[in-house]
Amino acid sequence: MRDFSNDHSALALNTATLGHNLEGHGAGWSPEQIIDACAARSMAGIVFWRREIGDRAIEIGERVRAAGMEVVGLCRTPYLTGSEAPETLDEARASVDMATALGAEVLTIVTGGTEPGTKGVLDSQKVLAERVARLAEYAGDRGVKLALEPLNPMFGGNRTCLFTVRDALNVCRAIDAPNVGIAVDIYHVWWDTGLHNSLAEAGGRILGYHLCDWLENTRDMLLDRGMMGDGVVDLKAIRRDVEAAGYAGACEVEIFSARDWWQRDPNEVLDTMVERFRTVC
Amino acid sequence: MRDFSNDHSALALNTATLGHNLEGHGAGWSPEQIIDACAARSMAGIVFWRREIGDRAIEIGERVRAAGMEVVGLCRTPYLTGSEAPETLDEARASVDMATALGAEVLTIVTGGTEPGTKGVLDSQKVLAERVARLAEYAGDRGVKLALEPLNPMFGGNRTCLFTVRDALNVCRAIDAPNVGIAVDIYHVWWDTGLHNSLAEAGGRILGYHLCDWLENTRDMLLDRGMMGDGVVDLKAIRRDVEAAGYAGACEVEIFSARDWWQRDPNEVLDTMVERFRTVC
Repeated sequence: MRDFSNDHSALALNTATLGHNLEGHGAGWSPEQIIDACAARSMAGIVFWRREIGDRAIEIGERVRAAGMEVVGLCRTPYLTGSEAPETLDEARASVDMATALGAEVLTIVTGGTEPGTKGVLDSQKVLAERVARLAEYAGDRGVKLALEPLNPMFGGNRTCLFTVRDALNVCRAIDAPNVGIAVDIYHVWWDTGLHNSLAEAGGRILGYHLCDWLENTRDMLLDRGMMGDGVVDLKAIRRDVEAAGYAGACEVEIFSARDWWQRDPNEVLDTMVERFRTVC
Repeated sequence: MRDFSNDHSALALNTATLGHNLEGHGAGWSPEQIIDACAARSMAGIVFWRREIGDRAIEIGERVRAAGMEVVGLCRTPYLTGSEAPETLDEARASVDMATALGAEVLTIVTGGTEPGTKGVLDSQKVLAERVARLAEYAGDRGVKLALEPLNPMFGGNRTCLFTVRDALNVCRAIDAPNVGIAVDIYHVWWDTGLHNSLAEAGGRILGYHLCDWLENTRDMLLDRGMMGDGVVDLKAIRRDVEAAGYAGACEVEIFSARDWWQRDPNEVLDTMVERFRTVC
């Protein structure tokens, strides 16, 4: 297990931590301001959301690398299942194109919910596997990896049909493409007593590791994540298992927090991230 | 698997479906009104919440049986873990006493959250097992069974340290008492692709089966459950597994629904329950 106590060179910012994933939230910093602030703190890189990038993907990617960092990933494809999924894969392919232009190695997939006309989980997972397999061909030709992210079961119905790392691995195996893996976000999987065993079977499939904390009293399903150390997650135990599965990449901080961290000066948020990364992650 | 298409003699009402679990909600019917309405519809029985019973447990229990039904269960002990758990088991023992006085065979346990000073799940489950084992002795002497209810992982932190049927079975095995089992509530477990296998290992441990539905668009963590048939749960598949594990008891409808069903005439709610039970459960 890597020792981060005096080293945050693996730390990355997901810009959702500054509220940049949602219209009308957050500090409103430009991508350039974010890049400069992360570079000044010697971070590994940044994960952007599509809405920040617009048509400036090449320019922003180059700027990140010129500052000595990497574009660690891009959030995210549109939903691929459920009643809100677009009818075609066109928008999903466009998000692959954006990842390519940014030079982001990994594109995250939040799957979408239950397929219309079906009940339960397995039918939706089958549809998902078929659609991701098609997208993976397109992405593979462009050097982009796809990370299936299981979500906390509270997001069943309209946001996800993958609820555990085991679910995501099962779909990966069904697809069996070299550029399809999983993202492990502690917010979504911390509660799973099967996680240790699932991660042990993940070898090589982990494409992203997302940090935040689960607050003891979560007040909002979507926008009340905690800063690392402020909640009940055993962060080091999970990182140990993630690294034992072979993951040696960036640790990306992704905190949706409309009432707390998004209200603060982004410089304070970034400084706190660095300090907590070294002490509790 | 039992055929309910022309038979609802296994249907029970959990009075939370009428808003009776929370102060300031629901129809405000007296226990007597509820008993008469359920008996008029030839239901199997009723599950009450402690706040409705007060000091009238014996009287209410007798009234239920005089109407030809059973008191199927009582909700619930106070939390046994987490920062909101009382310091002693006194209140938990008092809830056992109330179940005895009511003539309710089963007392449900919602465990409470993460033990103060711990991280993750396993330490809290150990504390839980120790406390439930002590309570089980007291309950066993009084003929009361304790049903550990796993909750949807969105309730981690402050409400539960059991997230799956497998978690609950693991704690049951650690306690190894003849009067400790589990409650299976489809709202909490519907998403679990391991459920089929977990239930296959539950043989004889299932003490309650709770019905509602998971709405595609859930607007509130606690109070937005759906009527059976209105959501995405594969109700018949889960009941098949529950019955294959040996469960032949009542199917209890428990719908927390502040914005919809709690706003309606209780007679409409009860009639809809009966119709949906026969057609989609």
